[in-house]
Amino acid sequence: MNFCSNCGARVDFRIPPGDALPRHVCDACGTIHYQNPKVVVGAIPRWGDRILLCRRAIEPRLGYWTLPAGFMENAETTAAGAARETLEEACARIVVGEMFTLINVPHISQVHIVHLADLIDLDFRPGEESLEVALFGEDEIPWDEIAFRTIGLTLRHFFADRRAGRFAFHTCDLEPAVLPRSTAART
Amino acid sequence: MNFCSNCGARVDFRIPPGDALPRHVCDACGTIHYQNPKVVVGAIPRWGDRILLCRRAIEPRLGYWTLPAGFMENAETTAAGAARETLEEACARIVVGEMFTLINVPHISQVHIVHLADLIDLDFRPGEESLEVALFGEDEIPWDEIAFRTIGLTLRHFFADRRAGRFAFHTCDLEPAVLPRSTAART
Repeated sequence: MNFCSNCGARVDFRIPPGDALPRHVCDACGTIHYQNPKVVVGAIPRWGDRILLCRRAIEPRLGYWTLPAGFMENAETTAAGAARETLEEACARIVVGEMFTLINVPHISQVHIVHLADLIDLDFRPGEESLEVALFGEDEIPWDEIAFRTIGLTLRHFFADRRAGRFAFHTCDLEPAVLPRSTAART
Repeated sequence: MNFCSNCGARVDFRIPPGDALPRHVCDACGTIHYQNPKVVVGAIPRWGDRILLCRRAIEPRLGYWTLPAGFMENAETTAAGAARETLEEACARIVVGEMFTLINVPHISQVHIVHLADLIDLDFRPGEESLEVALFGEDEIPWDEIAFRTIGLTLRHFFADRRAGRFAFHTCDLEPAVLPRSTAART
């Protein structure tokens, strides 16, 4: 952030009076610009004993598989966001169920929330951000090609809970990954 | 938003190619400025059978009682944010426990998350944003003077679960309040 989005003047980066953290402050119009974590919302769309995954057509993690998920929009709920993302990425319509996982990802200032869901029908196809969309049974999941750690964790909880016959809510905090130098940064 | 925070040019408000919602778009440098919901994190600090509430020294809802809570900051977890807000508003140190409620408040683009917590000691006092800080038993809660609906709902779940002998995770979506014309807008 270089300029004030309200008045267009240059902003300063400093701790405002009464605050504890540095903020982008506009001395021309007095606006303090706060920056806060973003919520990513997604779904586990179920059809019988299979679930729907999308292969990403965009970076980051182009070509890897993920659950339909994306940034929560203003004025929507987590469930509405999960349904919207599933429609956008897989052209699939779902009934959204219980909140299933909430994973803090502080090193990228995100909170990832995934709901259980049920596909309404088998009328799905890749949206603009997907290369492929397909249903997978537990023994077909491409574990080595899952795009994000939060999605891998969510899938592991899902299959463990399904085997146990009871879906619980799971929450945890993710530490930054320690990756080999040759591997691209990922979550 | 009137100006691009990256380059300072005037922004346009329109639907970018491949998107579904209008965004603030900068035609000078190409930046698309997304605006997303904010997360509010808080705690229920317990001491024996009482809990800590703060009386607000700031708007909105100045003079009303609330749990310590505030906007989640970048690079922190929900639990870390709950502890920070409790320190800021009540100068109180807590051990943060399980996530207890997550309430969607779409009409103000917020998600409110409250954790169970235990006070470490009785060394607390009002922070800059509080007029008073005090411990309340269930029969002492000032139900008519609670600042926000999400806090009232969370407190009701807390005492119901405590009576049942088991704390579960609760999540729901809040509709806009229908208020008498004479009442100030509140959440």
